[in-house]
Amino acid sequence: MTKLWNKSNAKKTHPLVEQYTAGTDYLFDTELFLYDIEASIAHARGLKKIGIITATELSKLERTFRSLRRACIAGEVAITPQDEDCHTVIENYLVEKLGDVGKKIHTGRSRNDQVLVALRLYMKDHVARVRKQCLDLAEEFVKRADVLKRTPMPGYSHTQQAMLTSVGHYLASFAESLLDDEALLGAVSEHLDTNPLGAAAGFGTAIPLDRAYTTRELGFARPQINSLYSQTSRGKFESVVLEGLGQVMATLGRFANDMLLFTSQEFAYFEAADAIVTGSSIMPHKRNLDPLEILRGNVGVVTGNHVMVKEISKNLLSGYNRDLQLLKKPLIESMRIVHDSLAIVALALEHLTPNESAIRAKLHRGMFTADIANDMVLTKGIPFRDAYQMAASSVKKQADLAQNLASKKSIGAPGNLSLATYRERIKKQRAQLRAMK
Amino acid sequence: MTKLWNKSNAKKTHPLVEQYTAGTDYLFDTELFLYDIEASIAHARGLKKIGIITATELSKLERTFRSLRRACIAGEVAITPQDEDCHTVIENYLVEKLGDVGKKIHTGRSRNDQVLVALRLYMKDHVARVRKQCLDLAEEFVKRADVLKRTPMPGYSHTQQAMLTSVGHYLASFAESLLDDEALLGAVSEHLDTNPLGAAAGFGTAIPLDRAYTTRELGFARPQINSLYSQTSRGKFESVVLEGLGQVMATLGRFANDMLLFTSQEFAYFEAADAIVTGSSIMPHKRNLDPLEILRGNVGVVTGNHVMVKEISKNLLSGYNRDLQLLKKPLIESMRIVHDSLAIVALALEHLTPNESAIRAKLHRGMFTADIANDMVLTKGIPFRDAYQMAASSVKKQADLAQNLASKKSIGAPGNLSLATYRERIKKQRAQLRAMK
Amino acid sequence: MTKLWNKSNAKKTHPLVEQYTAGTDYLFDTELFLYDIEASIAHARGLKKIGIITATELSKLERTFRSLRRACIAGEVAITPQDEDCHTVIENYLVEKLGDVGKKIHTGRSRNDQVLVALRLYMKDHVARVRKQCLDLAEEFVKRADVLKRTPMPGYSHTQQAMLTSVGHYLASFAESLLDDEALLGAVSEHLDTNPLGAAAGFGTAIPLDRAYTTRELGFARPQINSLYSQTSRGKFESVVLEGLGQVMATLGRFANDMLLFTSQEFAYFEAADAIVTGSSIMPHKRNLDPLEILRGNVGVVTGNHVMVKEISKNLLSGYNRDLQLLKKPLIESMRIVHDSLAIVALALEHLTPNESAIRAKLHRGMFTADIANDMVLTKGIPFRDAYQMAASSVKKQADLAQNLASKKSIGAPGNLSLATYRERIKKQRAQLRAMK
Amino acid sequence: MTKLWNKSNAKKTHPLVEQYTAGTDYLFDTELFLYDIEASIAHARGLKKIGIITATELSKLERTFRSLRRACIAGEVAITPQDEDCHTVIENYLVEKLGDVGKKIHTGRSRNDQVLVALRLYMKDHVARVRKQCLDLAEEFVKRADVLKRTPMPGYSHTQQAMLTSVGHYLASFAESLLDDEALLGAVSEHLDTNPLGAAAGFGTAIPLDRAYTTRELGFARPQINSLYSQTSRGKFESVVLEGLGQVMATLGRFANDMLLFTSQEFAYFEAADAIVTGSSIMPHKRNLDPLEILRGNVGVVTGNHVMVKEISKNLLSGYNRDLQLLKKPLIESMRIVHDSLAIVALALEHLTPNESAIRAKLHRGMFTADIANDMVLTKGIPFRDAYQMAASSVKKQADLAQNLASKKSIGAPGNLSLATYRERIKKQRAQLRAMK
Repeated sequence: MTKLWNKSNAKKTHPLVEQYTAGTDYLFDTELFLYDIEASIAHARGLKKIGIITATELSKLERTFRSLRRACIAGEVAITPQDEDCHTVIENYLVEKLGDVGKKIHTGRSRNDQVLVALRLYMKDHVARVRKQCLDLAEEFVKRADVLKRTPMPGYSHTQQAMLTSVGHYLASFAESLLDDEALLGAVSEHLDTNPLGAAAGFGTAIPLDRAYTTRELGFARPQINSLYSQTSRGKFESVVLEGLGQVMATLGRFANDMLLFTSQEFAYFEAADAIVTGSSIMPHKRNLDPLEILRGNVGVVTGNHVMVKEISKNLLSGYNRDLQLLKKPLIESMRIVHDSLAIVALALEHLTPNESAIRAKLHRGMFTADIANDMVLTKGIPFRDAYQMAASSVKKQADLAQNLASKKSIGAPGNLSLATYRERIKKQRAQLRAMK
Repeated sequence: MTKLWNKSNAKKTHPLVEQYTAGTDYLFDTELFLYDIEASIAHARGLKKIGIITATELSKLERTFRSLRRACIAGEVAITPQDEDCHTVIENYLVEKLGDVGKKIHTGRSRNDQVLVALRLYMKDHVARVRKQCLDLAEEFVKRADVLKRTPMPGYSHTQQAMLTSVGHYLASFAESLLDDEALLGAVSEHLDTNPLGAAAGFGTAIPLDRAYTTRELGFARPQINSLYSQTSRGKFESVVLEGLGQVMATLGRFANDMLLFTSQEFAYFEAADAIVTGSSIMPHKRNLDPLEILRGNVGVVTGNHVMVKEISKNLLSGYNRDLQLLKKPLIESMRIVHDSLAIVALALEHLTPNESAIRAKLHRGMFTADIANDMVLTKGIPFRDAYQMAASSVKKQADLAQNLASKKSIGAPGNLSLATYRERIKKQRAQLRAMK
Repeated sequence: MTKLWNKSNAKKTHPLVEQYTAGTDYLFDTELFLYDIEASIAHARGLKKIGIITATELSKLERTFRSLRRACIAGEVAITPQDEDCHTVIENYLVEKLGDVGKKIHTGRSRNDQVLVALRLYMKDHVARVRKQCLDLAEEFVKRADVLKRTPMPGYSHTQQAMLTSVGHYLASFAESLLDDEALLGAVSEHLDTNPLGAAAGFGTAIPLDRAYTTRELGFARPQINSLYSQTSRGKFESVVLEGLGQVMATLGRFANDMLLFTSQEFAYFEAADAIVTGSSIMPHKRNLDPLEILRGNVGVVTGNHVMVKEISKNLLSGYNRDLQLLKKPLIESMRIVHDSLAIVALALEHLTPNESAIRAKLHRGMFTADIANDMVLTKGIPFRDAYQMAASSVKKQADLAQNLASKKSIGAPGNLSLATYRERIKKQRAQLRAMK
Repeated sequence: MTKLWNKSNAKKTHPLVEQYTAGTDYLFDTELFLYDIEASIAHARGLKKIGIITATELSKLERTFRSLRRACIAGEVAITPQDEDCHTVIENYLVEKLGDVGKKIHTGRSRNDQVLVALRLYMKDHVARVRKQCLDLAEEFVKRADVLKRTPMPGYSHTQQAMLTSVGHYLASFAESLLDDEALLGAVSEHLDTNPLGAAAGFGTAIPLDRAYTTRELGFARPQINSLYSQTSRGKFESVVLEGLGQVMATLGRFANDMLLFTSQEFAYFEAADAIVTGSSIMPHKRNLDPLEILRGNVGVVTGNHVMVKEISKNLLSGYNRDLQLLKKPLIESMRIVHDSLAIVALALEHLTPNESAIRAKLHRGMFTADIANDMVLTKGIPFRDAYQMAASSVKKQADLAQNLASKKSIGAPGNLSLATYRERIKKQRAQLRAMK
């Protein structure tokens, strides 16, 4: 394939160099194809608007782009290591189909801002999809929490039973966590919502591009102004996205880790249906929650990818550096992991059932001392510190669980889950997500 | 000192255990003192509101808190390793001054939500300070960019001179970066703006706390609802803050790294005044930009601290775990680093002067080929790819620099820095910052 | 204090710069004092050997160094932020006591190689101490493993009971892990065992230093040859040491995490004595293993510090860069953590007792299916895959535990702990440790 | 494909779960195929030795394994996501070819120890290959250093010219760094050299395996004793290998970063041949060292992978956990990167030529002050600190470069590169490498 930077009299680059610099990058570019086409159409329209190409040329280009897009969606276009990237494939396709007209599309832009705008569109779109999944999953947690709000369960601190809570209260904590994660990703989306197209290689171009126009065409909130900053912000945006993704993984990983413990024979608080367990090659009785173990491990994968992004970007001279190509893999790989992990937790939630009698059998009476102390404060006016000393030696009988749960009435306590607040947030955050797209 | 959790008949904890669990934590608690006092006053008022303490008791408590705050500000209150943390110091102080009334302050709260609310107030306040510094520094970059917008300078890619730009264009990239960093920190602030006070040890309390009231008293936007989530979100919020701080460090570190190169004898694009250089013990001619090297290293310190926060939080059972205590150090240390690094770059910017003649002497004529190719496209209608092949062999003479810069007119290009947009953003973002506090 | 690099006519460095570049570095230099003195004496002897100083001058210097060492050990020498580092304090002390003779000590060396050699001596010495602690602790694990080798306990996979094992088998896994950690640290010690003294600022010196002589004087195995490599290997050695320390923390962190679970009310396999538990401020019944939680968190601190070291070293031009100063903190802080964590696990091991009846009550019969399948293979010649299918539906009765454990006879299986191998390794590795020092 | 853990009456696992748990793992298992076959043959021989299978069965198995190995090498065996891993493919192949005999190979082992032993063999073999590459490259650096030992070049500190050195001295620093890296990898190899085969699922087996026999068969130095430790050491060994690989990357990344600067127009110390440069899509004059930029970025990839390994292993209960499967990718990916990066630097070294006149033109006279000061010490007996103050204001004329270089005579200084020491080390380390295999 013809490289975009090929000069007619170029000496030979060593094949090892070609192979090493291409690496596995082309594998990730398939994800960017459609975004590059979208941006290329906007760029072509912009060139028409400023008179670089004619209306006829534009309509030829648009038609060709549409047929390429169809071919991509049908899986008929592959990127080979020799192509280097999707940008080369696109330009070569255009030149093959349209000759000189195809060559004109590169006017006023560089592969650098092509990559930048395709990545920005990719990130915006996929972050929106993750947000949708978070809201859907939060909704499921709210539903389960409502059903199970009176099912008792120990609350832990220091891996010790601390105070009584309910399964509903426990599950609601994940609903709120996901709502916060989604809200943060909403802020990340706004942060990403600037258009780098027109930055060229980082130092603008004498072609009088109408950047406000392409910004509108592509649905960005505003242009990213400084063309050098369009380059130097690479790595920064990816890191912010990875923090947002890492937050989701932290929520899901916590659920996975808890459930692996809560489905152990020693806890046995939850039972897992066959759909989500796998077996052991030499221990037939095992019911292993492998998907949640993989999920828990994937938290570490996303963290490692986040560090990778930061490390790759460290101490580079302002302007484009090829090192940045390596940012694609940790970003795209992490995005896939988060999509899949959200789907796995949705499935797991559906297939995990609390075993109330097993839970009740394990409640430790010590959990009720703090409540007894608080009761002395409320009813007898004894200072808490003294009440606490007295309660420590007076716990004798099991408390009335329903009454105990009901007594915790402040916002968000086991007796007052305030699920309505979450339902409102879900509605509101869904509206914001729709509005942004 | 009396530990809050001391029981009268407690057996002896081994001194090694006390020392190991306290660690250096108490050193960081001095930063939380005032925030804990602020939250304690709000909690006391809440207790008064629901009738746990009387108006007289409240006013005694408030008076004592005020005197303690004064003592803290005057540096008269120290936390020793024996005290464990600021919360113990405060309660002991109250009990010493007020007896039984002092003990009542612990009603309906746990050290856990005390730490949570103090940390949240700390983060909100310090993030606001960082934002202020970012805006001030962005403003300085805009001013310098305006002054130097016609001073030519090579723009780089692959550490090679790529195309002409100006010192002003280069500096403006940092202004935009800082404005984005500040905007992200604004979103982080909103994300943080929920009140965990009232979560107690994670499972609420039968004391009928009015959480909406203390939320208003403390100036939070809303309560953090689920009391368990108040615990399990620890580590998550710290990580988000560290991402925000890491973004600022990435901007500053880039400036430091560039300047260390641009002040080398080989580049010599900038000259550093004595105020920001130090000498060498055996090489008298050296003018070393040590503060910018330390800054560059501090980028790595903040990244390491970020990883620390994520690692500490990995795979912990839902509920409080003492591991979380170790989150304070990476957070508070990073915050200090960012405050100081912003101050250092402000100082450095003031003491670095471009040497225009040195820059001009080093401009490489190859930088103008892309412009020549673009010119052929615009004036002769030659397809870019062909023009590019022709230009590669035709660069003969130095271009007119001023004309070249002026020709790049699209938004954010060297001939159109669009600094007005930044000035507007600064104004608007300052207003938002003021509104939040 | 006079800075080593001060020139008589120096302009003023801004106080903010002094404060920022010093940072908290001086706090860590107290750990390097004695190593710098040791290296300085060797350097002085080297100068005498090549005739730069006289025998009388040497003996004055040695006497002064000895008195300084005594003062350091007595805690009478403090490093202030103004001093910058221990090297300045030492030289100023010498000049104050000895005048011109004191000044001569700086001949043929730079602060850079002073730091390098002091750090190398520090690392060698402290790694040796960690090794000693690892061997001592491994020995304790072997002893406990021997005592408890017939106490049954479930072996886990996927957090599910998998097959029967014994507490002794479980504990022996930590003995072997520590022995491997110690062996790796032994290799790290050898890797560190080269002398950078004489590299000066990285480019040698015309002073005809006898590097072979000072190498012998300081007890290094060989000189680090290339003077530039002495500089560029900074960060590399620290990273290797941190990997070694991280391995120890991984072993200890695993023990801590297991024990936090095994002392929970649901498992209750081990009981913790009062010496290692702390209480809760509002839940009197809690017996919290806080030291093991802090330990578990400290695994993350050491990992974060490791990343810090790698990040700080990324993309620096060959030669000394001030960024490297920031390597001291993560190194020294991690070393302290590892020393203390080894002491804590030694203490915890002493204060944790298995509760055999609680363990027996929780053994799940499914654990014996694989054994039944294996038995069919051995006694009836049924292929394993078929036997496995049959066993899965045939587990009815609890097996004979002692017989089951005893039947696993290959090396390292529950019925054959092979503790003698560890005892031999301990003896051999102790001898190697002694030989190296 | 039949899963190894399939039970006849198994309920359906959800397809999403199968896909999520398999992930991309099967892609990496192709690298483990031959090692698994090697270990399986040893296991089969062991089963024959203890009478589980007959001599005839063994020879059938061996023949089938050999044909499978040939098929693998010929690229005729693929692992599909449905197969899960290479272990399943192998067992299914055996059963298909040999029926009941094929099933017997699973006797006395688990997929867990199959993975462990295959990974250990993989790591040993690939670390040996990396060592070979390090020694070869070190040898090249020594050769170039010898040729260029009198070509002057500035030595840097703080990115400022500090003292004179030579290109040879500069290059020799990489030779020594690679020799140290190789030596460390040698120690890593020894650390890895224990046989986990026979650990079964972590708790041994009643099959009386002769572990000493299979240990010899597989060429391991000794068995890994404790069967549980065979599991819990996963992640630990990978981390040690990644530290070793990271050390190599640190050396190579430093060279890449230096060369990107030294080939810039401002430095122009080295010239790069066409074989290692690529062009720019819109800037025809650019000669970009893309392979070295990718290499520099790959340093961050390996660091990120190292963090991933540590994160994945954090806070897992002792015993096998499926999370560990995710360790393969960061390990194998990093190994490939290191192999390729060593090849790239070997190629780059061949195609980079110093431009002596360009270097000479840029030498800064200030570099000679320290030498002048030292000369005063040596010839006039002036204390260094005073000489230093005098020299600072007396540098007037360019020094005699050859004489200056020659004057630095201590070991490893520019006038005494001591390359013979490296040549001896190369010979000795090659012998050790051969001896280990």
